[in-house]
Amino acid sequence: MNRDIYQEPLVSRYTSREMQELFSERTKFETWRRCWIALAEAQHELGLTDLVTPAMLDELRAHATDIDFEVAAAKEKEIRHDVMAHVYAYGLKCPTAEPIIHLGATSQFVGCNTDLLLQKKGLQLVKKSLVNVIANLAGFCRQHKDLATLGYTHYQAAQPTTVGKRNTLYIQDLLMDLDYIEHLESQVKARGAKGTVGTQATFIELFKGDHDKVRKMDELVAAKLGFGEVFAVTGQTYTRKLDMKTVETLAGIGASAHKFAVDLRLLSNLKVQEEPFEKNQVGSSAMAYKRNPMRSERMTGLARKLMGLVGNFGATYANQWFERTLDDSAIRRMDIPQAFLLTDAILKLFLNVSQGMVVYPKQIARHLAQELPFMATEKILMACVEKGRSRQEMHEVVKVHSVAAGKVVKEEGMENDLLTRLANDPAVPFSVQELKELVGDGSEFVGRAPQQTDEFLDEVVMPRLAQYKDILGGIDSALSV
Amino acid sequence: MNRDIYQEPLVSRYTSREMQELFSERTKFETWRRCWIALAEAQHELGLTDLVTPAMLDELRAHATDIDFEVAAAKEKEIRHDVMAHVYAYGLKCPTAEPIIHLGATSQFVGCNTDLLLQKKGLQLVKKSLVNVIANLAGFCRQHKDLATLGYTHYQAAQPTTVGKRNTLYIQDLLMDLDYIEHLESQVKARGAKGTVGTQATFIELFKGDHDKVRKMDELVAAKLGFGEVFAVTGQTYTRKLDMKTVETLAGIGASAHKFAVDLRLLSNLKVQEEPFEKNQVGSSAMAYKRNPMRSERMTGLARKLMGLVGNFGATYANQWFERTLDDSAIRRMDIPQAFLLTDAILKLFLNVSQGMVVYPKQIARHLAQELPFMATEKILMACVEKGRSRQEMHEVVKVHSVAAGKVVKEEGMENDLLTRLANDPAVPFSVQELKELVGDGSEFVGRAPQQTDEFLDEVVMPRLAQYKDILGGIDSALSV
Amino acid sequence: MNRDIYQEPLVSRYTSREMQELFSERTKFETWRRCWIALAEAQHELGLTDLVTPAMLDELRAHATDIDFEVAAAKEKEIRHDVMAHVYAYGLKCPTAEPIIHLGATSQFVGCNTDLLLQKKGLQLVKKSLVNVIANLAGFCRQHKDLATLGYTHYQAAQPTTVGKRNTLYIQDLLMDLDYIEHLESQVKARGAKGTVGTQATFIELFKGDHDKVRKMDELVAAKLGFGEVFAVTGQTYTRKLDMKTVETLAGIGASAHKFAVDLRLLSNLKVQEEPFEKNQVGSSAMAYKRNPMRSERMTGLARKLMGLVGNFGATYANQWFERTLDDSAIRRMDIPQAFLLTDAILKLFLNVSQGMVVYPKQIARHLAQELPFMATEKILMACVEKGRSRQEMHEVVKVHSVAAGKVVKEEGMENDLLTRLANDPAVPFSVQELKELVGDGSEFVGRAPQQTDEFLDEVVMPRLAQYKDILGGIDSALSV
Amino acid sequence: MNRDIYQEPLVSRYTSREMQELFSERTKFETWRRCWIALAEAQHELGLTDLVTPAMLDELRAHATDIDFEVAAAKEKEIRHDVMAHVYAYGLKCPTAEPIIHLGATSQFVGCNTDLLLQKKGLQLVKKSLVNVIANLAGFCRQHKDLATLGYTHYQAAQPTTVGKRNTLYIQDLLMDLDYIEHLESQVKARGAKGTVGTQATFIELFKGDHDKVRKMDELVAAKLGFGEVFAVTGQTYTRKLDMKTVETLAGIGASAHKFAVDLRLLSNLKVQEEPFEKNQVGSSAMAYKRNPMRSERMTGLARKLMGLVGNFGATYANQWFERTLDDSAIRRMDIPQAFLLTDAILKLFLNVSQGMVVYPKQIARHLAQELPFMATEKILMACVEKGRSRQEMHEVVKVHSVAAGKVVKEEGMENDLLTRLANDPAVPFSVQELKELVGDGSEFVGRAPQQTDEFLDEVVMPRLAQYKDILGGIDSALSV
Repeated sequence: MNRDIYQEPLVSRYTSREMQELFSERTKFETWRRCWIALAEAQHELGLTDLVTPAMLDELRAHATDIDFEVAAAKEKEIRHDVMAHVYAYGLKCPTAEPIIHLGATSQFVGCNTDLLLQKKGLQLVKKSLVNVIANLAGFCRQHKDLATLGYTHYQAAQPTTVGKRNTLYIQDLLMDLDYIEHLESQVKARGAKGTVGTQATFIELFKGDHDKVRKMDELVAAKLGFGEVFAVTGQTYTRKLDMKTVETLAGIGASAHKFAVDLRLLSNLKVQEEPFEKNQVGSSAMAYKRNPMRSERMTGLARKLMGLVGNFGATYANQWFERTLDDSAIRRMDIPQAFLLTDAILKLFLNVSQGMVVYPKQIARHLAQELPFMATEKILMACVEKGRSRQEMHEVVKVHSVAAGKVVKEEGMENDLLTRLANDPAVPFSVQELKELVGDGSEFVGRAPQQTDEFLDEVVMPRLAQYKDILGGIDSALSV
Repeated sequence: MNRDIYQEPLVSRYTSREMQELFSERTKFETWRRCWIALAEAQHELGLTDLVTPAMLDELRAHATDIDFEVAAAKEKEIRHDVMAHVYAYGLKCPTAEPIIHLGATSQFVGCNTDLLLQKKGLQLVKKSLVNVIANLAGFCRQHKDLATLGYTHYQAAQPTTVGKRNTLYIQDLLMDLDYIEHLESQVKARGAKGTVGTQATFIELFKGDHDKVRKMDELVAAKLGFGEVFAVTGQTYTRKLDMKTVETLAGIGASAHKFAVDLRLLSNLKVQEEPFEKNQVGSSAMAYKRNPMRSERMTGLARKLMGLVGNFGATYANQWFERTLDDSAIRRMDIPQAFLLTDAILKLFLNVSQGMVVYPKQIARHLAQELPFMATEKILMACVEKGRSRQEMHEVVKVHSVAAGKVVKEEGMENDLLTRLANDPAVPFSVQELKELVGDGSEFVGRAPQQTDEFLDEVVMPRLAQYKDILGGIDSALSV
Repeated sequence: MNRDIYQEPLVSRYTSREMQELFSERTKFETWRRCWIALAEAQHELGLTDLVTPAMLDELRAHATDIDFEVAAAKEKEIRHDVMAHVYAYGLKCPTAEPIIHLGATSQFVGCNTDLLLQKKGLQLVKKSLVNVIANLAGFCRQHKDLATLGYTHYQAAQPTTVGKRNTLYIQDLLMDLDYIEHLESQVKARGAKGTVGTQATFIELFKGDHDKVRKMDELVAAKLGFGEVFAVTGQTYTRKLDMKTVETLAGIGASAHKFAVDLRLLSNLKVQEEPFEKNQVGSSAMAYKRNPMRSERMTGLARKLMGLVGNFGATYANQWFERTLDDSAIRRMDIPQAFLLTDAILKLFLNVSQGMVVYPKQIARHLAQELPFMATEKILMACVEKGRSRQEMHEVVKVHSVAAGKVVKEEGMENDLLTRLANDPAVPFSVQELKELVGDGSEFVGRAPQQTDEFLDEVVMPRLAQYKDILGGIDSALSV
Repeated sequence: MNRDIYQEPLVSRYTSREMQELFSERTKFETWRRCWIALAEAQHELGLTDLVTPAMLDELRAHATDIDFEVAAAKEKEIRHDVMAHVYAYGLKCPTAEPIIHLGATSQFVGCNTDLLLQKKGLQLVKKSLVNVIANLAGFCRQHKDLATLGYTHYQAAQPTTVGKRNTLYIQDLLMDLDYIEHLESQVKARGAKGTVGTQATFIELFKGDHDKVRKMDELVAAKLGFGEVFAVTGQTYTRKLDMKTVETLAGIGASAHKFAVDLRLLSNLKVQEEPFEKNQVGSSAMAYKRNPMRSERMTGLARKLMGLVGNFGATYANQWFERTLDDSAIRRMDIPQAFLLTDAILKLFLNVSQGMVVYPKQIARHLAQELPFMATEKILMACVEKGRSRQEMHEVVKVHSVAAGKVVKEEGMENDLLTRLANDPAVPFSVQELKELVGDGSEFVGRAPQQTDEFLDEVVMPRLAQYKDILGGIDSALSV
């Protein structure tokens, strides 16, 4: 690591080796060669056998990965054109094939098709992590489906829910992300072989006006590169609208992770749920006992950055003029890798956190007990209504005493005396003891939370995970920092 | 119109009556009543016949739309709770049913389900406009599929394309928007009847522990309201992630419109293509002859605003704490209508512009003629290579003369003399006359643009439009300003 | 209120009448007339006395505010040009002056100068609210400067601070906002009288080539309208960069309010500090006792929206082509009022909340007591070091026991036993009693918080407020919802 | 360069060595040591002479820069705490001073103060480039102050301006950026020595309750580090609101550069003005003659990214909880360097382009001649009015003929015949010859553009540049790509 100049923290700190490699020069330039090989093969197969010979194809394939980076870099410095520089370097290795490398193609033939291939691969990596996060959370939900805990609205105690049920909400959101990835994959097509401004002018010349062959070449190149479809029409590049959709999809994962992480940071303050604590981690120099939710905090920040990238892609797409302007170049060069690397970093954290979350049932019970009399007001109210009291009137009675009891807690720092207050009110047709029985131990206030959790896991989550059973498990979720 | 206080321009200037009405108080509160009726009906149908009687249902249905807004507003002012205020106002009209209005429900039962219904309806309105824009552009593409015009990269003249082919690019992007709307529609589900924090606690009590009936009620309410599915799990509200996806989808349309509009503004400067000019429109006080592309400019600005809303929804979703916090309220109240109204305004403009675009073939030909010798350099180069010259060497020769000829045009304001220069160069094996023949009249440089246009329209666009034939046509695209 | 179409909630719900009026048609068109009067007066004063007569000036001044909106609207509908329509309507009232209304000017003469005047006035309104919020918070800080409370980092208990000290942080941020408003005010200049593309071509003709007079007219018009300076150069409009700075400045206030509001929502959960509760406010239909921090939540959401507007203005400015493109029109028409109205709404809430915040000292003390033994670890550690123990070693000892005690609290739901654990460790040279004395009652852990509060209020805040004593007080902070 | 993993393009391609070094690990950790030395010196000077001895100070100063990165990295890996790891590494070099390194301080003592110092230095680097861009443009304006050229509104030809005058608009915007940098510099203060949560608790203990000394230490440390002021109050960190302001300021430069670059790209299409062409630059593989405005396009894209960062900082600040949450860490670690590096890259391009812009006067004249009859309509109109015709009526006459002449140009591709049409209209009191004289050669339509340019340069720009004469010139504006 060079300590004398700035180093991108995404690479030096947060991401997986696989994703770092995906956006390396090596992967990029090797993919360029894959594109050139596919083009030559297609041209050969479609009848240009004199021009593109089997010997040339063999030569090209034999040198698919032995890139002399220094030669290419020196040539690029001279002619200031990266594609021609790599055509040159490839040609040095393939003297026979040299004249037909990149035949009829424009720079964006390798540029766009390579970008699209990297994104397809990137989406697969993302999907693998995402599916495993969902699996982790599904296990967590099942385990804690019955554990009653305070629900919160306005971050004020509301009716109880269960720990498992709450976590189904995160899963449902992540499944929406998964849906959108799958939908995006149906939108990612090859740019194919379209020529300078997308008209395939050089190719129709090459094939002497045979439109059918040019269309077939386009599709053949795409198929050889592993694409299911090819964009029907393009300008110089594939539509930058696709980039916008890609990053929106990734940012969706960021947003889901952000919501989860913020909730976990709040739970951590409440001392009811925590991310796993790494061995030897130092909380801070002064306060060793602290269990700071640092991974959740980091997820929050990384997700914020990821969500902040979306606007760039919208603006780039919306401001592309005609067949293409190059104001897309530098920003895509930075932001596409950043978007995937950020998603990777977030999911690495999410994997780590979701597989070891700690729950403190006794703290949960303590919080619940403090609020239970308040929790039960709706139930008490309905019981009063059943005894013939007017709902509107009882609403007021309960409200007055609740507010008073709330004041005792806040202003006196004393115990909740709501039930006593209610029992003493002549409008309430119950004794303290009856009210206590109504309140119960809390478990009955969770409604259908346990059942919802099971139903959701069985009917929604498991079938989705079953589709992805090949990529479940086997992920190293250790973090370097 | 009240001129003494601020008026929202989206309403006073840019949008359709239909969309304005969709986000009115009337629509909202009538939809609340639809929700209450559906709830009561479902409760009745699932066996609560003593509690919810046929007479009550009749009464509720009879007063589905006669809202006394003043009574509700006065009550809201008193108790500061809009849902209870409307329960009260409804109850005044339905004295028998009064005790069972909103039975077991929480405010978000009407809040969320109504929001979702409005969005579903809003998406239908958007889709209708979108499909008609696509149809307009498809007609335009077919008409101009052969008309050769300069292609541009870097906004510098590049190889020619055709007017029709260029416009297929906009259609392809709009079809992606259509795909995303359809995908979004598959994600929009009812919030259903879930109770305060989503646990259905009050309902399971109402149905004496019968889980099956509570599930059925949830689905029945959704079905009665016209939803195909119901969210499996919710907090107090449906997930705000859906809002994020909704506005991303709408903003996608904005981005497509933005790209189109900016291109049209550039074409307008080139005097080759224009939006239709409205009768009596005054260009500006001083320059009456100007044909200012004001609708395209307005589309640009409105689209920018629409795209700028996406981040709000991501941030709101990502910062929702637990089962719900109310920091979503004011911003959704403004931004959801704004997003739909902006989309509506943009599509109104797009409809208007796309059905009357003016093309000036003679100006197009003039531009083409100026650049044609440059255009043909690749062809000349390949012809030289066919005559046995080295590609690398000829590349340099052509470059030098092209640059020189470019200078003559720019620096002398004179005619392009590229062909003469090339013919005079001994390295070039052609006479001026031969070069002129190589250059031709330009039509042969468009490659497969006409064929691509036909193929795209026939194979991609027409099948999609056929799916929507019921909503094609019949839109009034007149603009008020 | 029209319930049949969408109504902008900013106006119908959240803002002050003053700000609503500022962005009304009435204010706008009256200001246009002020501009025309200033122009005519300046032309007269600089010697065009034959052309612009005293009688004309009298007539113009006499009809400065009697706008016939219907006449203007009808004319605009006919000629589709709002400025010429209002010139016409003014001319009907001023038959003598009619030929010289708008003499030599372009539409943006009234457009830009009016926008700038409204923004200047808007900034004054904002500043008044802002200064009063600061004053409210200053009083709160002074009152609670000594009240020890838990400090939080990672939202985990850290060393204590005081309630007053914490609130100085909000003030410091608001003072930065005030600085930026003042700096912005120094940047807001008149657009003046610059002509169609900013060259003053019509004016130099009007003044027969007298450059000095045209410059003077420019400055005179600006001065008459109340501007200190006039932009040295403009295109057709004043630079849209200024709009970007204006909205950044307003969004700064939004961000400060957002941080404050989120903290208050967390404090509200902790039951240690709350916004004032309005009489008759209904928490929710089901949970009457809840004290939901609804105003803080609303501040959060409104601030989010305000911050989200900044990007629009950057994009509009950055994409203005040459002397002006009209893609700025619709978006500015919506977003400038929105930015000011949102700021107004946020500050109304901030005023309301900041003047009645409720503090619960006994709850604060309870929280503090739970964490105090942990709080004191640094002090204990230093005491051990003073007794000759190695800092590194004691750091480890304290860490181990803190972690253990933390576990007891979380896992057992029991009391903190840290001091006992430490006293039992032979490495620690203190008894339990000695450790308890070290821990004390907490007040000594607040360091210089009380002193910092006083110093900051006396040295920084009071001098700033003294500058604004004329606008302190007298604001109605009641909220309609 | 490691080609196997992703490399940040900002570093590998676009930025100056100076800025890359500023955000290196070396600079960061050396600055930490500067902070520790300043702290120890201040403690010594304020009387802690027994604790902090002269020998210790000498030792610390002697090892200010000999950082053993490997030792620190290994320690950090072990204890997962970067500050303590560097305290350890420093201590190994300074065995005597080891116990008093970082005495009483918290991690953010080095963290925040270092960040602030780097930002101060970064602003100086930015300012140097910015001032030199302004100087380049000022020279360009002076040179072309008289050169008449078409002005554009709606990107349609409007009244002429001059090349020099148009470019004053960019300068005025950049001067606003300079104002905002200067204002920002007045807001950047030291975080100073404030302790864990900002209360200076450890320091007041260290100084045995002497408040005066702790305040003095705070200020002394700040002064030693080169700050003019110290933040009056802080939480654990300095307020993240400052970061928001910093990046807004940098993004302002991005926005100014964006507007300039987009205009230049349009001018390049018009062939009237271009960025300098680098030797050996290859336009594209197929079209060698093209002069693609690649640097302007790159400026556009980089500026878009820079502007897109602003929202991140607002969100981070607005979501900081209490004294600090660590969701700021990863995002600031990436985005602060990115913001400065992007600004640096943009200004490098701006410097390069602004010092060699090419103007083509003959092309400019050609464009002007095409539009001149249209340009003169206002003048003709006013001449008619002077001859007693009604302004309203002549407005209509001129409009009708202008529209007709415009049609001839667009629809027939023929010459503008406006003057003939007007002369033939009986309502117009001029012959063709008289009209031609009215139209003139165009120079008289530029109004005060030349004078405005001189006045602006003399009165506004030169005084500002004079303030910065020490940093004018001497910048290498060569680009590597």
